[in-house]
Amino acid sequence: MNLKDTIAAIKPLDRSTEAIIRAAMDNKSKPRGSLGRLEEVGIRMSMMQGSLKPRTQPASLVVFAADHGVAAEGVSAFPAEVTPQMVLNFLGGGAAINVLCRMQNIRLRIADMGVNFDFAPHPDLLDLKVRKGSRNMLQEAAMTHEETLQALENGIRAWNIVAGDSPAIVAVGEMGIGNSTAAAAIIAAATGRDAAEVSGRGTGIDDAGLAHKVAVIRSALALHKPDPRDGLEILRSVGGLEIAGIAGFVLGAAAAQIPIILDGLIATSGGLIAALLCPATTDWLFSGHRSVEKGQAFALDLMGLEPLLDLGLRLGEGTGAALALTCIDAGCRIMTEMASFADAGVATEL
Amino acid sequence: MNLKDTIAAIKPLDRSTEAIIRAAMDNKSKPRGSLGRLEEVGIRMSMMQGSLKPRTQPASLVVFAADHGVAAEGVSAFPAEVTPQMVLNFLGGGAAINVLCRMQNIRLRIADMGVNFDFAPHPDLLDLKVRKGSRNMLQEAAMTHEETLQALENGIRAWNIVAGDSPAIVAVGEMGIGNSTAAAAIIAAATGRDAAEVSGRGTGIDDAGLAHKVAVIRSALALHKPDPRDGLEILRSVGGLEIAGIAGFVLGAAAAQIPIILDGLIATSGGLIAALLCPATTDWLFSGHRSVEKGQAFALDLMGLEPLLDLGLRLGEGTGAALALTCIDAGCRIMTEMASFADAGVATEL
Repeated sequence: MNLKDTIAAIKPLDRSTEAIIRAAMDNKSKPRGSLGRLEEVGIRMSMMQGSLKPRTQPASLVVFAADHGVAAEGVSAFPAEVTPQMVLNFLGGGAAINVLCRMQNIRLRIADMGVNFDFAPHPDLLDLKVRKGSRNMLQEAAMTHEETLQALENGIRAWNIVAGDSPAIVAVGEMGIGNSTAAAAIIAAATGRDAAEVSGRGTGIDDAGLAHKVAVIRSALALHKPDPRDGLEILRSVGGLEIAGIAGFVLGAAAAQIPIILDGLIATSGGLIAALLCPATTDWLFSGHRSVEKGQAFALDLMGLEPLLDLGLRLGEGTGAALALTCIDAGCRIMTEMASFADAGVATEL
Repeated sequence: MNLKDTIAAIKPLDRSTEAIIRAAMDNKSKPRGSLGRLEEVGIRMSMMQGSLKPRTQPASLVVFAADHGVAAEGVSAFPAEVTPQMVLNFLGGGAAINVLCRMQNIRLRIADMGVNFDFAPHPDLLDLKVRKGSRNMLQEAAMTHEETLQALENGIRAWNIVAGDSPAIVAVGEMGIGNSTAAAAIIAAATGRDAAEVSGRGTGIDDAGLAHKVAVIRSALALHKPDPRDGLEILRSVGGLEIAGIAGFVLGAAAAQIPIILDGLIATSGGLIAALLCPATTDWLFSGHRSVEKGQAFALDLMGLEPLLDLGLRLGEGTGAALALTCIDAGCRIMTEMASFADAGVATEL
């Protein structure tokens, strides 16, 4: 499906079953609401899957990778060469996201949306390269209009590949040196917040580096002045190819009514682009992890999402989303497996 | 081992290996510290287990159950009969803690420390009953000195049974109508906080119920005036049999240098008693979940612990501890499985 048809196919969550599902949860052998967010998650998953026995397996995660022209401005603590090196680390199975996906029984794939490197074919690598890195947003738009559309549609293609696994839930992560600058710029553009309010240290820049990053984002936004309601325009001017891939993937999964777990700052900025392109998308999103990067909270507020975990992660890759699967799985299993008061022969009140 | 010998056997965590272990974590292919609390947990587990390949399996959880004399004062939203009913629900496999232990591959046992019911023998039920419920703290001490010692030693016996599984980690939970009153009273006694500061709604009392609960705790503390540094005296005067069981179990596991995951308010109050009896115990503790009950935070502050999860749970049973195993497992696997920068051929700096 192309972008337009995908967006047209996205429906809000059907809440007509909510009363029945909530009654089933309230009747479990526990005080009402005492399982907190597990109950909320179990109820949402039941509504999404149209079942009183929701599940999280099979699960798939895609790490979207790309390079960024703005990395030339020295906005990251790591050199751009680390993007392809880390993709090779993912393919070799040694990165944090590999460890966590193995632990959680999540199928992991890497989508090359625009890494500045020619990779050999690999069964877990999706070749969706649009260009060897986005353009430097300080000098020109990060992508042309055509590149932006192609990156979004390549994200939809990534979803179509993952759809072959018939996943019960999917998750998104990312890798791209410089991409916390792009994500912060997207969030500043969409929320109207100043760059200083939404920018953090990424993988570890110092005070001077952070001040420079803020100045770069301010200049780029002053140059392009994207309309805060226009997701396509924001993405084109200050986004990134992997962020576009995430947005397209999210739209594709939402159109198929499959729940999606967002990771930290960058994945959340991709989710935000998807939500700007189609607001009903937010009904299909979970936020996996509270990022150390403060920009994420503004994006989550716009989407009405609250992270499940807060473990101080600032790595990206999808690590927070992979960990959060446990909370979602727990909510599903409570709904599926737990006895009712009547089943258990437990008194319900004084 | 008796209580005295168990306490004598508890040693602080050996930190002589910390530099080597931290260097191994810092050399993983990620920015230093970017995995936040997973790194802290992985490093602690490595020190506890004396290994660069720490692990969380096999894992065991014990739910300590007892009735409370103070329940006669109407401090709970549920009748006392729910304690044995829920124990039967645990033995039948239908409660929340059963679901989460199955999910997490945790062996679950129930310790009857003092439920007002005669249970038939069951392979997962540990008969460690001291008395059919503690006494009403508003009229007399919750336990006699002998009952207190016996309950602590029965907790050590529970550990000795679990030790037969050679667990890599253990967790504790509880069930007992009225036990959030006992836990809040323990925390008020140990911290010097007023009852109103440490009391919450338990499984769901209303404003009037909460005011009554606070008044009951205040009166009980005014009657017994336990020394805030004397864990045994606090436990005897306002504690509970399952809380004593948890304290004994924690001491037994700590003496064997096995990490212990505490659950919410009540399990944390048991951990606090253990820490008062032997301060080095805190080196072996993790806090699994931030309780909705505000008293827990004061107890955690005294022990220097910070919860891993905050999912709005207020059920107890060990549910928060069982869920937190994922975070601890993730930290262990990061330490065990993740590639170093050199292994992965990734640049470490600009």
